[in-house]
Amino acid sequence: MNGQLPARMKAAVMTKPGTIVMEERPVPQVDANEVLVKVMAVGVCGSDVHYFENGRIGRYVVEKPIILGHECAGIIVAAGASVTNVSLGDRVAIEPGVTCGHCQACKEGRYNLCPDVQFLATPPVDGAFVQYMKIRADMVFAIPEHLTFEAAALNEPFSVGIHAAKRCNLQPGSTVAIMGMGPVGLMAVSAAKSFGASRIIVTDLEQVRLEAAKRLGATDVINVKEEDAVQRIKEMTDGVGADAAWETAGNPRALQSALYSLRRGGKLVIVGLPAQDEIPLNVPFIADNEIDIYGVFRYANTYPTGIKFLAGGGIDTKALITDRYPLEQTQDALERAIHNKSGSLKVMVYPNEIL
Amino acid sequence: MNGQLPARMKAAVMTKPGTIVMEERPVPQVDANEVLVKVMAVGVCGSDVHYFENGRIGRYVVEKPIILGHECAGIIVAAGASVTNVSLGDRVAIEPGVTCGHCQACKEGRYNLCPDVQFLATPPVDGAFVQYMKIRADMVFAIPEHLTFEAAALNEPFSVGIHAAKRCNLQPGSTVAIMGMGPVGLMAVSAAKSFGASRIIVTDLEQVRLEAAKRLGATDVINVKEEDAVQRIKEMTDGVGADAAWETAGNPRALQSALYSLRRGGKLVIVGLPAQDEIPLNVPFIADNEIDIYGVFRYANTYPTGIKFLAGGGIDTKALITDRYPLEQTQDALERAIHNKSGSLKVMVYPNEIL
Amino acid sequence: MNGQLPARMKAAVMTKPGTIVMEERPVPQVDANEVLVKVMAVGVCGSDVHYFENGRIGRYVVEKPIILGHECAGIIVAAGASVTNVSLGDRVAIEPGVTCGHCQACKEGRYNLCPDVQFLATPPVDGAFVQYMKIRADMVFAIPEHLTFEAAALNEPFSVGIHAAKRCNLQPGSTVAIMGMGPVGLMAVSAAKSFGASRIIVTDLEQVRLEAAKRLGATDVINVKEEDAVQRIKEMTDGVGADAAWETAGNPRALQSALYSLRRGGKLVIVGLPAQDEIPLNVPFIADNEIDIYGVFRYANTYPTGIKFLAGGGIDTKALITDRYPLEQTQDALERAIHNKSGSLKVMVYPNEIL
Amino acid sequence: MNGQLPARMKAAVMTKPGTIVMEERPVPQVDANEVLVKVMAVGVCGSDVHYFENGRIGRYVVEKPIILGHECAGIIVAAGASVTNVSLGDRVAIEPGVTCGHCQACKEGRYNLCPDVQFLATPPVDGAFVQYMKIRADMVFAIPEHLTFEAAALNEPFSVGIHAAKRCNLQPGSTVAIMGMGPVGLMAVSAAKSFGASRIIVTDLEQVRLEAAKRLGATDVINVKEEDAVQRIKEMTDGVGADAAWETAGNPRALQSALYSLRRGGKLVIVGLPAQDEIPLNVPFIADNEIDIYGVFRYANTYPTGIKFLAGGGIDTKALITDRYPLEQTQDALERAIHNKSGSLKVMVYPNEIL
Repeated sequence: MNGQLPARMKAAVMTKPGTIVMEERPVPQVDANEVLVKVMAVGVCGSDVHYFENGRIGRYVVEKPIILGHECAGIIVAAGASVTNVSLGDRVAIEPGVTCGHCQACKEGRYNLCPDVQFLATPPVDGAFVQYMKIRADMVFAIPEHLTFEAAALNEPFSVGIHAAKRCNLQPGSTVAIMGMGPVGLMAVSAAKSFGASRIIVTDLEQVRLEAAKRLGATDVINVKEEDAVQRIKEMTDGVGADAAWETAGNPRALQSALYSLRRGGKLVIVGLPAQDEIPLNVPFIADNEIDIYGVFRYANTYPTGIKFLAGGGIDTKALITDRYPLEQTQDALERAIHNKSGSLKVMVYPNEIL
Repeated sequence: MNGQLPARMKAAVMTKPGTIVMEERPVPQVDANEVLVKVMAVGVCGSDVHYFENGRIGRYVVEKPIILGHECAGIIVAAGASVTNVSLGDRVAIEPGVTCGHCQACKEGRYNLCPDVQFLATPPVDGAFVQYMKIRADMVFAIPEHLTFEAAALNEPFSVGIHAAKRCNLQPGSTVAIMGMGPVGLMAVSAAKSFGASRIIVTDLEQVRLEAAKRLGATDVINVKEEDAVQRIKEMTDGVGADAAWETAGNPRALQSALYSLRRGGKLVIVGLPAQDEIPLNVPFIADNEIDIYGVFRYANTYPTGIKFLAGGGIDTKALITDRYPLEQTQDALERAIHNKSGSLKVMVYPNEIL
Repeated sequence: MNGQLPARMKAAVMTKPGTIVMEERPVPQVDANEVLVKVMAVGVCGSDVHYFENGRIGRYVVEKPIILGHECAGIIVAAGASVTNVSLGDRVAIEPGVTCGHCQACKEGRYNLCPDVQFLATPPVDGAFVQYMKIRADMVFAIPEHLTFEAAALNEPFSVGIHAAKRCNLQPGSTVAIMGMGPVGLMAVSAAKSFGASRIIVTDLEQVRLEAAKRLGATDVINVKEEDAVQRIKEMTDGVGADAAWETAGNPRALQSALYSLRRGGKLVIVGLPAQDEIPLNVPFIADNEIDIYGVFRYANTYPTGIKFLAGGGIDTKALITDRYPLEQTQDALERAIHNKSGSLKVMVYPNEIL
Repeated sequence: MNGQLPARMKAAVMTKPGTIVMEERPVPQVDANEVLVKVMAVGVCGSDVHYFENGRIGRYVVEKPIILGHECAGIIVAAGASVTNVSLGDRVAIEPGVTCGHCQACKEGRYNLCPDVQFLATPPVDGAFVQYMKIRADMVFAIPEHLTFEAAALNEPFSVGIHAAKRCNLQPGSTVAIMGMGPVGLMAVSAAKSFGASRIIVTDLEQVRLEAAKRLGATDVINVKEEDAVQRIKEMTDGVGADAAWETAGNPRALQSALYSLRRGGKLVIVGLPAQDEIPLNVPFIADNEIDIYGVFRYANTYPTGIKFLAGGGIDTKALITDRYPLEQTQDALERAIHNKSGSLKVMVYPNEIL
């Protein structure tokens, strides 16, 4: 059931930290339960940048050449004999973490905690900066005609926001504060809006990001260069505080602000990873106010929901994509993401053609 | 519908921090929706000791003479005209926090967060070291014949443990680690057992407390003077970690140990209030492992459940009560609680007669 | 703190079923914890019509003259000494069920199950077809300037829909089928939309109602005079079925269709009360597919959320209000609701002036 | 890593309904992710009896010879190369439903709703009335030394009870009524007790079953030949009703009693499958009292918990096992289960030796 495919393809390989080299690789052969995807759009994620700059993230170390990129979408061009969920020609979003399906975490529905997950672009697993990529068929989700590949690729960071909303059981009508308007924070705004939050207060240091947040649904913005986030959130909520606060930037100060901005019984969600391990948190405040705190690690069961929201048309994904590169300029794309932090939001790579 | 009552009664009044004076007071008159309770047993709580020693707890300051004591049980001796839930002669446990019933927290079922709560022995509200005490009728709960008053008084610290179990949705069959075996920690062991925990691992510095914990249902004890709690809990759980960990002592080190003793997806409950505000917590650990953290402030909707558990007979409350005093020796009772921390567990005061 | 008020007012009293008589009554005096509301808009509810036609609903029997009407909004014109949540001149929505605040149901946050609730226009409690009405202050909720009184009055049926969504924990992105597009069903559409449902499939026999449903957010409509609801819903969901189905009309056939339209693991919500008690339901279907079924009785903790949604501007309440009457024509209003079922949606009464 | 194994084994094959024939079969070869279990104990389930008597259960039809039996435990005697969760010689309980791990139901943690499940002894999948059986390794769970194989086999019906408790979020301290004291009902009593229910009221027609229920933890028994279940449960609960009621017998009358025995806000769990599809249920009662109803289909994520409870020693499994047969007498075992309904509770088959 496979169409006419080339034998070889281009791949943007990180041969060592800081160096991306274009290589030619064989187009992969699929097993019975796999599909081959022609990769059409890949977002540059903070983790890609991190591996590119530092060669490691925590316990994950780049020890040999690796292909980065895991926020991706494409077209099904081949499918194994037992694949039933998609057909040749289907346009799909790709969930990048292939989990085992058999451990306790997987069976309990928290597959993001599977110890045996194979996650794209996490060493030693290759990622999506390639023309063709194979993956287990249950990791791809068909998208409707009118949803662009680049919007579908954004379903990955969007999933983090959806998962944050689910972790804290975000109630429609809530007031949520979101700290940090990088791409994850911005897509978290979209998630909060999709979950029916009535008020979405966001913070950042950069005006361009606050403006993008507004386009995505933020109702109130706070530039923390100029204003104190806790004080402003208290004012905006008649002294009560927010129902939920999500920290997405890994900034210790922002995390503390997020905590203090909560009402009694409020919920803190930790999405961002700070550079240092130990952050001082006000424990009596947590106890006295019966705060809930939820750690977020990737996401689970978010892809179908995310696609529905993105396809619904209420999310201005164009507000987020600031830079576009062909596969051959993947190195430029990564460097752009590093060096233009105040201007670039999401940098996108197009392995087959710029859309 | 009231029996023959004296006009005046004895009260143990803290005239200033460190000084309890016996005074004679009029026996209170009840309003239509109130009951008068002949107080039979009152436990000395850490907060009583704190007010006695320091005259304040956080923002609550003793500014005039106050009657302490809030873990209490007794007999209904008078009832207002509209009282229907109890009758004269009923033996009752007394829930000490009178909430408004009309604010958002009350209406949502989280009445422990009611901003207008009147809590016994929290300035300026008088407490239970008296012979007779009036209270709104919905705060008293009938207890069966075979449940002693002192066991019923323990329903108050027991409620904290029950609330901890409910906050983290403790699952039957779970492994829970409980840090700190003071009276709250010990009753938390009883709560965990009542909720069906299969394994209850406890820590403390004092052997006498660890022994009491065993009598109440702890399956494994760790003396943290001799062993490292995290390491031992990991060994006991085949390297996996506990499903839940509760810190009850307000010890920063114990809180950190509680966090590190958890499995991925585990749940940390903060019951104890540390003396200092800011405690360093490993935030990447919380995020990577999707830990939930729940603050606990008092309790809500625990009294009926607690009475059922206590009446069920599976809880060896005698293991907990180490010292008994008549009302006239309330000062001695408080000093005993202060000066015999390694030997005394729960000190009990009997305002009408030693049982 | 009260303004200049008249001593007497007009009231539309149902002296016996089928007969509304205008009477003059004294304007009520408020207690310390009460407010007096100048009633500006009152919706005619199915229960008002039922009492008007039959003099009873189940165990509630009209035994003496009663004032009907409970979907209402107005202006605070007097407030007792201890009222703090609203001020004179505040425009408010009125939650019509005054609960005790002290029973187990109230304390657990399910105050709609309070056995001592005093509910407006439920015998023997008088309702809102009057110019001025007093009520306990915690039952009124300030509304923003731009929200009309008639939209605020709709917060009552809207609350039923919000409660249905909360009862079944409706997930954003869900597909929900709503059976019956009377006013409750129509506001349930608004609730489902506010909760982020991606697809809202509705059924009715009347095209005018299906059109109104579309204006309120229904994505797909089924006229059950022409099409089979179960078959169409299955087709619309690629054979899978709906995530949730709500029956709002009290129609046994619609209830069965709702059940059969669900996917495995789907959730059925019973809002409508059928005329007969026993309805045949497919029990093996419920077990095999692990269906959840949730009964809905009024609502709890919905007013603040409902006001936020209504004030957010996304709900076309004008689509719902088809008929408007002054207080003097309350009898006409009720008869209109009875005799124009295929044309009228919500009939509104204005006790002080038509807005 | 395999021990010395025979090449051939005995199997009790149902060649047609009503006829079990002993056959010789090759001992299966395991794949890399499979284990081979020497089957030591197999309980006879109602579904085995049903296939034996009728050759079908609903849409599952016996069309060719099949090996029945799915409540089983044994010893690991061979393991594929990639198996890590158990070792040769481990004693294990076997979860009989092999799910796909990749569909939406599996990924969401509700794998019992997996459409592609391969369930032992459900046509056309062979079951456990054999000496050796292979299965995917994640379906076996090591049991401690002191837990017998027959107790471990009971983990299967026990799992149904545990799942019922989880479905209705059974709270410790609850009052639960369980209708029908067949093996599933009896193990449901054990589950309710393990979940901390304070009061377990059970019903049946047979005194022998009610006596067994008492041994397993029932606090109150009702013989419905002599007493009205609803009336008695109301009396036992001071007119309030039960917090939860589980119907396990598939009896329409018992289901209606279960519903009417509930308090407002109570929870009905449907475990038993009635012979007829449509059962009349009081829908206004469900709505007015905000009843929750939960269908139960098998179970998910119960095996580890069940083993912990069984190993904890609080469950008198001997109260349940009334008849024991060697593999050669499987036909007798099934007939015993059919013809001694008032005397036999659980009939057990031992494929290798009677324990």
